[in-house]
Amino acid sequence: MSEAATIARPIDAADLIADMGARARIASGLLARTPTAAKAEALRKAAAAIRDAAPAILAANATDVAQAQTNGLSSAMIDRLTLNPDRIEGMAAGLEAVAGLDDPVGRIIDRAERPNGLVLQRVRVPLGVIGIIYESRPNVTADAGALSLMSGNACILRGGSEAAASNRAIHAALVAGVTAAGLSADAIQLVPTTDRAAVGAMLTAEGLIDIIVPRGGKSLVARVQAEARVPVLAHLDGIVHLYVDRAADPAKALPLVVNAKMRRTGVCGATETLLIDRSYQNPRPIIDALIKAGCEVRGDAAARAINPLVMTADAADWDTEYLDSIVSVAIVDGVDAALAHIAAHSSHHTDAIITEDQATADRFLAEVDSAIVMHNASTQFADGGEFGLGAEIGISTGRLHARGPVALEGLTTYKWLVRGSGQVRP
Amino acid sequence: MSEAATIARPIDAADLIADMGARARIASGLLARTPTAAKAEALRKAAAAIRDAAPAILAANATDVAQAQTNGLSSAMIDRLTLNPDRIEGMAAGLEAVAGLDDPVGRIIDRAERPNGLVLQRVRVPLGVIGIIYESRPNVTADAGALSLMSGNACILRGGSEAAASNRAIHAALVAGVTAAGLSADAIQLVPTTDRAAVGAMLTAEGLIDIIVPRGGKSLVARVQAEARVPVLAHLDGIVHLYVDRAADPAKALPLVVNAKMRRTGVCGATETLLIDRSYQNPRPIIDALIKAGCEVRGDAAARAINPLVMTADAADWDTEYLDSIVSVAIVDGVDAALAHIAAHSSHHTDAIITEDQATADRFLAEVDSAIVMHNASTQFADGGEFGLGAEIGISTGRLHARGPVALEGLTTYKWLVRGSGQVRP
Repeated sequence: MSEAATIARPIDAADLIADMGARARIASGLLARTPTAAKAEALRKAAAAIRDAAPAILAANATDVAQAQTNGLSSAMIDRLTLNPDRIEGMAAGLEAVAGLDDPVGRIIDRAERPNGLVLQRVRVPLGVIGIIYESRPNVTADAGALSLMSGNACILRGGSEAAASNRAIHAALVAGVTAAGLSADAIQLVPTTDRAAVGAMLTAEGLIDIIVPRGGKSLVARVQAEARVPVLAHLDGIVHLYVDRAADPAKALPLVVNAKMRRTGVCGATETLLIDRSYQNPRPIIDALIKAGCEVRGDAAARAINPLVMTADAADWDTEYLDSIVSVAIVDGVDAALAHIAAHSSHHTDAIITEDQATADRFLAEVDSAIVMHNASTQFADGGEFGLGAEIGISTGRLHARGPVALEGLTTYKWLVRGSGQVRP
Repeated sequence: MSEAATIARPIDAADLIADMGARARIASGLLARTPTAAKAEALRKAAAAIRDAAPAILAANATDVAQAQTNGLSSAMIDRLTLNPDRIEGMAAGLEAVAGLDDPVGRIIDRAERPNGLVLQRVRVPLGVIGIIYESRPNVTADAGALSLMSGNACILRGGSEAAASNRAIHAALVAGVTAAGLSADAIQLVPTTDRAAVGAMLTAEGLIDIIVPRGGKSLVARVQAEARVPVLAHLDGIVHLYVDRAADPAKALPLVVNAKMRRTGVCGATETLLIDRSYQNPRPIIDALIKAGCEVRGDAAARAINPLVMTADAADWDTEYLDSIVSVAIVDGVDAALAHIAAHSSHHTDAIITEDQATADRFLAEVDSAIVMHNASTQFADGGEFGLGAEIGISTGRLHARGPVALEGLTTYKWLVRGSGQVRP
């Protein structure tokens, strides 16, 4: 190819991601050795920069929102897109909260001395370069950037096209903070195009991007999982079960069920299927309370016999994540049947039991194969913040690397350090 | 489709793997709750069954070897394929060794009590179903089956077609031991066909197989990584570097270099590139010792100036895993240049430094981004057995989930257990 032809070739998505990835790799090498205090300072300076830039961020967001209204986006999507001074302060406070988290990098997982005198340590190190693909919420730019940086990783952010101006404004403030602290501007990069080909290039950027984290609805996550050649840390459905055992304390069961289903119906920890032991003495108040709270209850024949307002559940209901004020209710023959139902229908996110029988609880905790298994607690606690992680980049329903809420530690790996005094292997 | 048509349809590879996977999933649920002692007993009974079946295994192996000779396989491949009484005893002893390892299942990774009284634990659980795809070494059937079982996982084994009869005989002994201990025969399954389509079906068996472990040469691993939709635990090249710093003790450096390169040249921990600090006082004895040991030395101009027997290294040499009595040698300007060379050429498997300067050693250990980084030790120690893991299913050069030597713990994941007393989320 002649030089002229090279120059004339348009920059395509793969070239763009290759360039960003190469710069991210260099930045990640520096970040991996950046002390905790410097990373925290960068995030605090970024928080200050977000606050200083609030007028510019709000102006950029107003153009995104106006465009979204012109394009006829749904009111729910426009709500997710819209920023206000409270949401901007929330982003800044979130950056400061991440700055205060324990730094996993350098933590020694274990240590062993071998009979030949070799001393082995496994030490936590950052994953490297994280690609984050998200949709309309602009606050993800700040949240994901902060978690990546504090865990010593460089990141490449690709937000939704409808939030492009907002994301650019937030990203500019992040970079201002990061560089003010003396770190590389390439530590947090934002894909500068809303061309969908850039997503494809990220998903196939093996060797450039070490892990992809999709944050968004089912269709985004499904596309990412279908196309990615880079490992993906993702959660799909949260088909969450709550089982009320015969030995449940009714005074606990009723508020737990109502909270687990109705506190917030749109979160992945919201209960979607209620299983009630046929031997539980007083199921009616639970059903009545759900209906009174505005929940549509769909049940099997036995559930419908409890209250005539219960509607008929069809086969699809047992495999549906409603994310709405709807619950499916099955009456089951004790913990065996509950375990069988959960094994058949759970999405392995979160499942819970209510019982005062410790042996039954222990069995449920041992046998349910989900990322989070709870006893006498609301499934709405399935959240990195509630787990004390300080934040979360997602809840993994995969089995490898990290499971359940993922925060800083889940964005690290480890290496083996071997210290000797001249040992040769016999 | 009519019933007759259903019956007439041939069983294809996807159906076969779907059936094996479904049975493996049930077995994995049982194995996850099988006590350590029962798993160990199964492996000890399998070891006894292997010893009892030695004549049958040797007879089956003889047919494989005869077929391989007829097919004109290389002598190296026939050597890997061939069993003898010592190798069979080695397999049996290996099963007993795995039976004696610490069981990671049920181990509590960490525990926290939240201000609201919720008690959280992360507890190790098996991955589920492991698919192992390997080549001509029949002992992998026993090794991989044992590591999977002891870590509470069901496995689906797919060995090389050239070892089919040997693998069937070994597998039969394993199943005899497993069932004699009262465990499910589906815990260790062997794909009964050597049809290559079965490999493709395993690689795309998402939801049926939780992780694929390829064990074999580069072409196998490359095919698996290219085609797999199931996560893969794999290592590709071991382009291993050994850096002799200016502050290296010559009395340690010479035997370390010779051992790291020449002890066994075909293992992934064998040194492939030797980097010597230009300020190291006495490089000639090292080069001479390698040549005397039968190693072909290929070097840059400065290395060739040390000894005229050094041949010319070309650009490809710096990226080559020889697995042979060949080494590339570069003379570098201190630890900075060594780190830059390693960053550019390492396969992130194992890299090592020889120095008496603690600050230089610490910097090398911190900055080299490889699964294993060593100081004053032979790179030939890169091995799960030498690391005290008791065995290894492979050495991962990937960054996610497990890195470096992988044994029982690397075949587990964790779940979160949350114990409450009726807490609802505000």
